[in-house]
Amino acid sequence: MSLLVVGSIALDSVQTPFGATADALGGSAMYFSHAACVLHPVQVVGVIGDDYPPEALDRLEAVGADLRGIERRQGESFRWKGKYSYDLQSRETLETRLGVFATFKPKIPAEFSDARYIFLGNIDPELQLSVLDQIHAPTLVACDTMNYWIHGKRRALLELLQRIDVLLVNDGEARELSGDWNIYRAARWIIERGPRMVVIKQGVYGAVLVEGTGVFYIPAYPLEDVYDPTGAGDAFAGGFMAHLARTDDLSPANLRRAMVYGSAMGSYAVEQFSIRRFEEIGPAEVTARVREFAELVRFEIEPEPAKP
Amino acid sequence: MSLLVVGSIALDSVQTPFGATADALGGSAMYFSHAACVLHPVQVVGVIGDDYPPEALDRLEAVGADLRGIERRQGESFRWKGKYSYDLQSRETLETRLGVFATFKPKIPAEFSDARYIFLGNIDPELQLSVLDQIHAPTLVACDTMNYWIHGKRRALLELLQRIDVLLVNDGEARELSGDWNIYRAARWIIERGPRMVVIKQGVYGAVLVEGTGVFYIPAYPLEDVYDPTGAGDAFAGGFMAHLARTDDLSPANLRRAMVYGSAMGSYAVEQFSIRRFEEIGPAEVTARVREFAELVRFEIEPEPAKP
Repeated sequence: MSLLVVGSIALDSVQTPFGATADALGGSAMYFSHAACVLHPVQVVGVIGDDYPPEALDRLEAVGADLRGIERRQGESFRWKGKYSYDLQSRETLETRLGVFATFKPKIPAEFSDARYIFLGNIDPELQLSVLDQIHAPTLVACDTMNYWIHGKRRALLELLQRIDVLLVNDGEARELSGDWNIYRAARWIIERGPRMVVIKQGVYGAVLVEGTGVFYIPAYPLEDVYDPTGAGDAFAGGFMAHLARTDDLSPANLRRAMVYGSAMGSYAVEQFSIRRFEEIGPAEVTARVREFAELVRFEIEPEPAKP
Repeated sequence: MSLLVVGSIALDSVQTPFGATADALGGSAMYFSHAACVLHPVQVVGVIGDDYPPEALDRLEAVGADLRGIERRQGESFRWKGKYSYDLQSRETLETRLGVFATFKPKIPAEFSDARYIFLGNIDPELQLSVLDQIHAPTLVACDTMNYWIHGKRRALLELLQRIDVLLVNDGEARELSGDWNIYRAARWIIERGPRMVVIKQGVYGAVLVEGTGVFYIPAYPLEDVYDPTGAGDAFAGGFMAHLARTDDLSPANLRRAMVYGSAMGSYAVEQFSIRRFEEIGPAEVTARVREFAELVRFEIEPEPAKP
């Protein structure tokens, strides 16, 4: 089934204790698409400036993305510069230059308006709503947001919640939105406002899916070396949504599988700077990692029967 | 198999956003024993003052603890007073009165010296070493510690690591001990110094077992209401060790099960103040919760075959 993402396309300059990048490929739509395309093609909607490197689009197209929704405009591309703490658990924004992204108004090409699986990356909730007005009959809409919108555009965000199926946020955002520190109560608060389910990402601790009374927890893949946490959440969303789009199966069992594919993609994102790791892997590597997740949490309640 | 714990027996006065206790039953040996005794009897070694409430010992004996290793001395019992933050994620010690615990020298009664499963609660590593000198042939020794000893008694602690099988610490302690923020590298650092395995507790995020190259992750039980985090780590240890002692099976599969029993006991500990919750539950409740853990992390890599 068709999978569409709307989000930012940025050039990131990131410093971590393990290195630095300058004008590297970034933004929610870029991380989402590179992760998703390992499993399933993606239709991308976003905006770039006239300084955006053409080879970046070539690389994205080469992995299976449909770029007809990327608008190139006069001006500078969105640039973000940030620095992570020694433990990668917090970051400081050194510079944000919105450029052409400041006046981004997502236009869904006619060819994309039948898209069935939709991911609304972290942009103004009013723009996220405008995207939904341009989509005919989505099967599943998932949405990310951030504290800036939770405080500044709360009314639009609450309206949006009524029109989406999955809110996919990190724990801090779930807490800010609900006003509740407990993530399970926060998830219930959110579900009462519209979405059928909530995915709460907890970074190095994993992610939880709350759907009705069901709770599924997937830990983060145990990595000894993490280079750059940027984009892990969007890569998670890419794996989650790509698995759902390729299987077109919203059963509880398949939603759980989608969580594992999301976690796998999140783990790949942080193993390299920018989107580089996704250019090294294919479906076979992802399947192997999913099997490692199964082993990571596997236990039998009863001992194996004794051998005769 | 016999299970022995050495640790503190305290009277705790705890304030959380949800209530307060005064001189409630606490201490590592007390939390460990009440949790463990739900599954398996425990031999307890500790010290109390002459002000210690006799009914607390009666309650512990009633659930199956052997108290012949509890020494009653003239003076005041160990008292700890603490206050938790609104989110229960940090706490402030308001008062510590060591009383008779200040000069505690664990004496293992002759009847306990054949104990096979040993838990060394968080006390001075020199005292933990002295306990091992009094035990003949333990099958498995597990040990807790804290930052105070990691900094103040590092040499004794490193000596201790060579004589134990399991180090069971929280993530902050593993980081302090190893000097490494990454818990998987920290676990490897610890294993290189003696223990066969490391259990790293991560509070609301769960716990991880690292043994050789194997990693097992169990999330925390999803609780909407947590009243008092005190003693969760010791209750975890109680469930972990009691399951191993009752089964006398150190296979990887059974170590994983022990982690789940540990997590179940940790979750009970925080559902009430002090050790109260353990007086409400029996093996049937614990088995039911272990099954809930299985459901919490369950996923199938492949979809179920379609029904014909």
